Amino acid sequence: MLFQVEASLTYDFAAPCEVLLLVEAAHGRDQQVTSDALTFWPPAPARRIDDPSTGERRTVFAASGRINALYRATVETAASDHGLAGAEETAIADLPSEVLPYLRASRYSPSDRLMRFVEREFGGLRGGEKVAAILAWIADHVDYRAGVSHAATTAVDTLVDRAGVCRDFSHLAIALCRAGNIPARAVSGYAWRLEPPDLHAVAEIYLGGRWRLVDPSGLAPLEGLVRVATGRDAADIAFMTIFGAATLVEQHFSIDRVGG
Amino acid sequence: MLFQVEASLTYDFAAPCEVLLLVEAAHGRDQQVTSDALTFWPPAPARRIDDPSTGERRTVFAASGRINALYRATVETAASDHGLAGAEETAIADLPSEVLPYLRASRYSPSDRLMRFVEREFGGLRGGEKVAAILAWIADHVDYRAGVSHAATTAVDTLVDRAGVCRDFSHLAIALCRAGNIPARAVSGYAWRLEPPDLHAVAEIYLGGRWRLVDPSGLAPLEGLVRVATGRDAADIAFMTIFGAATLVEQHFSIDRVGG
Amino acid sequence: MLFQVEASLTYDFAAPCEVLLLVEAAHGRDQQVTSDALTFWPPAPARRIDDPSTGERRTVFAASGRINALYRATVETAASDHGLAGAEETAIADLPSEVLPYLRASRYSPSDRLMRFVEREFGGLRGGEKVAAILAWIADHVDYRAGVSHAATTAVDTLVDRAGVCRDFSHLAIALCRAGNIPARAVSGYAWRLEPPDLHAVAEIYLGGRWRLVDPSGLAPLEGLVRVATGRDAADIAFMTIFGAATLVEQHFSIDRVGG
Amino acid sequence: MLFQVEASLTYDFAAPCEVLLLVEAAHGRDQQVTSDALTFWPPAPARRIDDPSTGERRTVFAASGRINALYRATVETAASDHGLAGAEETAIADLPSEVLPYLRASRYSPSDRLMRFVEREFGGLRGGEKVAAILAWIADHVDYRAGVSHAATTAVDTLVDRAGVCRDFSHLAIALCRAGNIPARAVSGYAWRLEPPDLHAVAEIYLGGRWRLVDPSGLAPLEGLVRVATGRDAADIAFMTIFGAATLVEQHFSIDRVGG
Repeated sequence: MLFQVEASLTYDFAAPCEVLLLVEAAHGRDQQVTSDALTFWPPAPARRIDDPSTGERRTVFAASGRINALYRATVETAASDHGLAGAEETAIADLPSEVLPYLRASRYSPSDRLMRFVEREFGGLRGGEKVAAILAWIADHVDYRAGVSHAATTAVDTLVDRAGVCRDFSHLAIALCRAGNIPARAVSGYAWRLEPPDLHAVAEIYLGGRWRLVDPSGLAPLEGLVRVATGRDAADIAFMTIFGAATLVEQHFSIDRVGG
Repeated sequence: MLFQVEASLTYDFAAPCEVLLLVEAAHGRDQQVTSDALTFWPPAPARRIDDPSTGERRTVFAASGRINALYRATVETAASDHGLAGAEETAIADLPSEVLPYLRASRYSPSDRLMRFVEREFGGLRGGEKVAAILAWIADHVDYRAGVSHAATTAVDTLVDRAGVCRDFSHLAIALCRAGNIPARAVSGYAWRLEPPDLHAVAEIYLGGRWRLVDPSGLAPLEGLVRVATGRDAADIAFMTIFGAATLVEQHFSIDRVGG
Repeated sequence: MLFQVEASLTYDFAAPCEVLLLVEAAHGRDQQVTSDALTFWPPAPARRIDDPSTGERRTVFAASGRINALYRATVETAASDHGLAGAEETAIADLPSEVLPYLRASRYSPSDRLMRFVEREFGGLRGGEKVAAILAWIADHVDYRAGVSHAATTAVDTLVDRAGVCRDFSHLAIALCRAGNIPARAVSGYAWRLEPPDLHAVAEIYLGGRWRLVDPSGLAPLEGLVRVATGRDAADIAFMTIFGAATLVEQHFSIDRVGG
Repeated sequence: MLFQVEASLTYDFAAPCEVLLLVEAAHGRDQQVTSDALTFWPPAPARRIDDPSTGERRTVFAASGRINALYRATVETAASDHGLAGAEETAIADLPSEVLPYLRASRYSPSDRLMRFVEREFGGLRGGEKVAAILAWIADHVDYRAGVSHAATTAVDTLVDRAGVCRDFSHLAIALCRAGNIPARAVSGYAWRLEPPDLHAVAEIYLGGRWRLVDPSGLAPLEGLVRVATGRDAADIAFMTIFGAATLVEQHFSIDRVGG
C-alpha cells in the first residue's frame, strides 16, 4: 500500500540546545520510502545519525527560538504475515546476537519483575499461543484510557493500574513476552486509520526466526503502519528528545493512503 | 599487563533449561585473549552467540541436573588513558549512531527521573569536569555497604538509600551522566586486586570522541580490569541468565597477574 | 486574629455515592469557630463524623447529580509560639500514646526509606536545630513547581524530583523529621495571604512536649492559618474523599481577615 | 481458650538508644490477660506507653550493650464470630469516627493505587461477599514464599510479585478491602499452631458494625490468636522499633495451649 505521511512540530526554545528527531520513515524494513523531505523553518543546522543496521533515520538539529520541523514522505509498504498461530518459540541458543537485547528488562518494560506472574498465568503455553494469550489477557484486563499514565509509567504500573494508552499497552505486552523468554521490542510509526491521528506505539515479537508486529491496544490495522523507530521501549523511540528545555507550540501527525 | 582469569560456576537445575553465560573475556577491546577455554562438566550442548560489533563473547548452554561451568583464559591488556581532565563533551550531533542508545534511560539507570537533580547540582559544568564532579558527589554521599540493595534496586533507589555495592555505584554514575547528556554504559569484568575476588561492575563514559573507563566505587585499579561485558546496565551484563530455575551450589571468580 | 473562610465545591456525580468532606474549621485547636454553616444545594442527606479527640469536623453526604457544597465560617485564632530555636527533642519514652503514630512511616511520608539519608545529613543535630536544618535543606534543594508531582507522589519521589507543591514539601519535611525520630504530621487549612487562594498543606512537629506548626513551602504566614484537618499525611487530610466517581465543575476556597 | 505465650529477644546495641517493644498481649479485645511479666536482663529503664483506647500495651526501654527482653503471659481468649457470610457493608456515614482512618491508604497498603483493579475484579459484590472474593482471589493468585519480599515491600509489589509471607498477604487483603470502601487494618499476635512459631500478621475487616478477623495467608486457626497490636499496617505493629542501631543475637516467640 502507498501512503503519504506528514509530521509538523513547532516548539519554542528559550535557550539554544540540540534536539534529536525521530519522525522519519525507516528505510528498508518491509517498506520503501519513495520520496521524503525534512525541513526546518527558520533553517537550522542539522545532521543525520542514521542507523544502517536497522534503517532507522534520525536527525539532530540545533534549536533556538521558535522553530518548525516539517517532515513529508511517500512510503510504500509491503504485505507481511504477522500471524501468531503456529509460530514456534525460538530456542535461546538459536537467537541471533542482535536479538538478545530484546530479552532484557528495560526502563519501561521491567520484565524481571513479572517472571512469576507470567509463569503462573501463561506457564503452560509456548510460542505464538503464549503471545496470543498475553495479548488476550491485556485486552481483557486493561482499559484504554488517557490520563492514568504519565511519562514515568512502566509496564508494572500499568499491570496495577489496569488502564493506559497505546504506549502502556505496548510496554506491558513487551514486558510479559520477555518475562516468558520471548524477545519483544517497541515500534513507533504512522498508523493509518488511527483516530485521532498521532504517532502510534505497537510491539514486535520474535517468533519462528523473525519479528512479527502486534498491536496490543488494537487501535489500527497492522498493514497500515509506516514504521519510524524500533527499540527496547519508549526510551528508545521517543519522536523528539530535547537536550535542554522547550515549550510545545503546535504539532500534528498525519497519514493518508494514496491511490488504491 | 598479562592476567590469568578463572570462573567456576556450579548450579543445580531441577528441570532442563537454557542458560546464557557471560563470563568470557571480550575480544579486541584494548585486550587480547591469548588462550581461553570454557568447559562444562558433565558435558553440555553449548552454542556461541558472540557479538562481533563489540567483541562480547556469550555462550548459551542446555542445563540439567548439577552442572559446573569452568572458564579459564590468559588475557593481555593494553595501557589506556581514561583521564577525565580536559575531556570535552561531544555534541549530540557528533555522536556515532551506536553511541546514542547509551544516552537513553534504562532499567537500572532511569536517567529521565534525574534531569532536575543533575541540572541543579552539576548544571554549570561540562565534559570531564561534570563527570568528575558526579563521581566526587557519589563518593561523598553514598556508602559502600552490602545488604541494602537487591536485584530490583535502581539508581534512583540508590540516590535515596545512600548505600549500595559496586553495581549500584555504577548505575548511579551512569544515570547521572546520561541525565547530564553524556553517554554512559555499564561494564563488567575481572578486577585485579578486588577484595574479595568477584566480577566487578564499573562504567564507561563517552567524552572527547571515545569511551573512558571509570570505577564509581573505587575498589580496584582500572588498569587491572579484564573486560567481559558491555551494556546499558546490569540487565545487559548479568554473568548468568537462567531461562528457568536453578540453585547455586558454588561459584568463584579469580584473576592473577602473570609475570611482571 | 479573626477570619472569614469560605469553600464552595460543585461536582457532578453520574451515579449516587457517599462523599466525605473535610473542609470545616476544626474546633478547639488554638482556634474558636464563632459561627459556621455547611449547606448542600440541592439539599442532600448528611451526617457528621467529628473526631472529638482532635476537634476535626467531618461530614459525609449522599451525592447524586450536580451538587454544590458551601461552607462558611468565622474563626478566631489565638497567637501561638511555633519557634524551633532551643526546642528540645522529646525522648521516645516521654511521648504521649497518641503521638506515637506520627513517628511511623505513612503512605506519602515513607520515613523508613530515609533513615540513612537523615543520619548522613542531619545526624549530628537534635531537636529544633535538626528540624530547622531539615527545613533549610528542603528550601535549598527543592523547587516550588506545579506539574511535576501527581496524586501518588511520595516524599521519596520529591527527594529525587527536587520539585513539587506545598503538599510535597510537607510530605518531605514530615518524612525527614520522622526518619530523625521526631514525630511529625500533616495539617491542612485556609491560609491567609496564600496566592492563589487554596487550601494549604503545612506540617506540625512535636518538640519540647508540644506540636509546633511549620510551613515547609514558606508560602503563607503561620499566624494566618485556620486549621481544618490533621493526620499522618495527605491520605488523612484530603478535603474530599469520593467513594465512587465524580467530575469537578467548579471549586474555590477563600479566607479574609475581619476587622483589625 | 487459655494460652501461655512467650517472647524472648536478645540484641546487641553498640550505642545506647531507645527501643519501642510491641510484644505484649493486648488488654480487653476479646481476650483477658490473667498474668504477665516483661523483664529485661540486665535490667533496663523502661516506661509504658499503653493505648487505653485500644488496649494495646507498649513499652519503651533504654537499650545499651547486649540485652534480653523476656515476656511471658497467660491469656484467656473468648470465642468470637468472624464469619463473613451475610455480613453487611457499613455505609460510610455510619462509620464511627475512629474507624475512618482504616479506609485510608497507608505505607504498605496504598489502596489509592488499587481502585480500578478492585472495581474491575470485585465491582459487582458488596460486604462479606466482596471480602470473601478478595480473600479467595489472593489464595488463588499469590504464593506463600519467603525471600521474595523485603522490608519496603507494599501490597502493590505483592500484587505484581504474586508471592510473599503472612505480612504481605495481610497488606494485600487490607489494601484491596480499602480500595473497595471497606475499612481494614493489620493485627499482629501469637498464633497457636503456626509453624514455625513466630508472631503472625493477620487482618481485621469492618463489616456489619464490627471488626472481624481474617487470616489472608490461612496459616493458623483464628480462634488461637492472642492479639498484640492493631494498626494501619506493618508500620504500626512492628514488634520492635529501634531508634538507633542494633544486631540481632537471638529471638523466639512461642504459644502453648494450657489445660483443655
